[in-house]
Amino acid sequence: MTAAYDVAGIGNAIVDVIAPATDAFLAEHQLAKGSMMLVDAEQSAALYAAMAAGVEASGGSAGNTVAGVGSFGGRAAYIGKVADDQLGRVFAHDMRANGVRFDTPPLVGSAATGVSMINVTPDGQRTMCTHLGAANQLAEADVEPSVIEAAALTYLEGYLFDPPATRAAFEKAAALAHGAGRRVAITLSDSFVVERHREALLAFLGRVDVVFANEAELTALFETGFDAALAAVRGRCALAAVTRSEKGSVLVTADAVHVVPAAPVAQVVDTTGAGDQYAAGVLFGLARGLPLPECGRLGSLAAAEVISHFGPRPLASLKDLATSSGYRLAA
Amino acid sequence: MTAAYDVAGIGNAIVDVIAPATDAFLAEHQLAKGSMMLVDAEQSAALYAAMAAGVEASGGSAGNTVAGVGSFGGRAAYIGKVADDQLGRVFAHDMRANGVRFDTPPLVGSAATGVSMINVTPDGQRTMCTHLGAANQLAEADVEPSVIEAAALTYLEGYLFDPPATRAAFEKAAALAHGAGRRVAITLSDSFVVERHREALLAFLGRVDVVFANEAELTALFETGFDAALAAVRGRCALAAVTRSEKGSVLVTADAVHVVPAAPVAQVVDTTGAGDQYAAGVLFGLARGLPLPECGRLGSLAAAEVISHFGPRPLASLKDLATSSGYRLAA
Repeated sequence: MTAAYDVAGIGNAIVDVIAPATDAFLAEHQLAKGSMMLVDAEQSAALYAAMAAGVEASGGSAGNTVAGVGSFGGRAAYIGKVADDQLGRVFAHDMRANGVRFDTPPLVGSAATGVSMINVTPDGQRTMCTHLGAANQLAEADVEPSVIEAAALTYLEGYLFDPPATRAAFEKAAALAHGAGRRVAITLSDSFVVERHREALLAFLGRVDVVFANEAELTALFETGFDAALAAVRGRCALAAVTRSEKGSVLVTADAVHVVPAAPVAQVVDTTGAGDQYAAGVLFGLARGLPLPECGRLGSLAAAEVISHFGPRPLASLKDLATSSGYRLAA
Repeated sequence: MTAAYDVAGIGNAIVDVIAPATDAFLAEHQLAKGSMMLVDAEQSAALYAAMAAGVEASGGSAGNTVAGVGSFGGRAAYIGKVADDQLGRVFAHDMRANGVRFDTPPLVGSAATGVSMINVTPDGQRTMCTHLGAANQLAEADVEPSVIEAAALTYLEGYLFDPPATRAAFEKAAALAHGAGRRVAITLSDSFVVERHREALLAFLGRVDVVFANEAELTALFETGFDAALAAVRGRCALAAVTRSEKGSVLVTADAVHVVPAAPVAQVVDTTGAGDQYAAGVLFGLARGLPLPECGRLGSLAAAEVISHFGPRPLASLKDLATSSGYRLAA
């Protein structure tokens, strides 16, 4: 059956609070540059009080990715939990305005919509402190079978390994997708996530067709060097797409290695969302049946767009950018 | 007595929702490009549903101006009404993070924090639809005498002529400021505001030392051409600072006219906040006793910064920009 959706994403529904910060600010608050740290309500309030004035924008890793798929002109759906509050309505609006189907019912309860405080240093690196709030309470019941079964690829966000309850949602989604003859993709999300959940992630890779990781995450997962980690992942997943910052990416299957360069960027302003948009390009390409090197190049193109400005999602139409780079993308 | 604050601003406390839009979108929703229209809750919801995905940022005309004064290294205070909700806390955080004193108690009641939906067309022009919400309910009692009496200039936002109750707050602030030997400034805000409240604004100018306007607002106020309007305003206010977009500005007193050029901008991205930041530069200069042409140049410099990116407030330090332009600004 033809897929109604190119990609269905499942992730932590998060609104980003993005502000400029100095290296001294990171040091003072004991934040490891480039990482994502989970914080409770009290830590969240204290850090927010100390942060510079910022802007708010819908984020969440898989949320950014499906927004990117929408920007490529793809058909996407999203499953994630917001609260019934102002930021939750902002998140839902932005999802739908990007053409993404989003109808997970908002949480009724005391938790607010999750926020990620993103401190961006002058080198463009982002350091995130996330208070999951309602995102934490995504339930198995929120995984709507008709959405997963209709998506060419279901894309799972590794961050969801942190809330204990959401892992059941992953298992359900993977079973539904494979039951319908679809593919399952996952991103490892963050090297600290990998450290916290190494065994569970390794086990889960057995039910995954495509894995996304950056160098740090991949080497953390296999506790070895880059080349050995690449060899290890080949035995576990049909496809691994590994990003290497300015060195581009590597797409690895059992019998091929495709090295894809990064796309040029005039100035790196804010790396928030780089990996998410790379995944958007690759997933969109896979859903449309493009050759792997082409999938990687769409990923590079989308990543280059998002790091050239503040904010986690594309501001320009990725479809237009791809078209002007010579791609002909069907609707 | 030395002023504890360079500027105290009173205005509609608003969070902006900023999104890209086409000219066709403006036409379809009958929005006059470049204007500010007030909308009720129902219209607000309908327009938001139709808008593109956006970003949220603290705004409000006088709010932007005092944030700009803070960015120049000035001491500023703000009086305005938010609700006790997520966007209200964002507004308060950003104000304080900009170094601005802000302690107006949030509204307890059903109204939410005011929002302005800003549709930015490819030419960089912004068209605003504002749902005032809690901002509407700023009361005379919120005008804290100790703040106004300690500010070299009190800056009033013409938009506050729309909510009937807030005009009393203006009268109180003007009386307090003059009673303490301070100066009062006002911005006419928008030509539709001027049309709605021409007589009241003309009467109020008698209690104002400095008036800010753009060409359209000034000619709307006096219902005449630009030169005649300039002549008319000279007789009413000690100083008028009139902005003319890319033609820069004119500062007019009873016996002098200073023409100030606009500062160069590589690319105009979003004109939101241009007038607000111009006012920030001029007010900061006035508070520090700079000659009028210097005040105007600081205004040009601040306006150029804010129109070169998305969002209503400076992203770069205006103090650093001024310093690199040869100014030596005392703390």
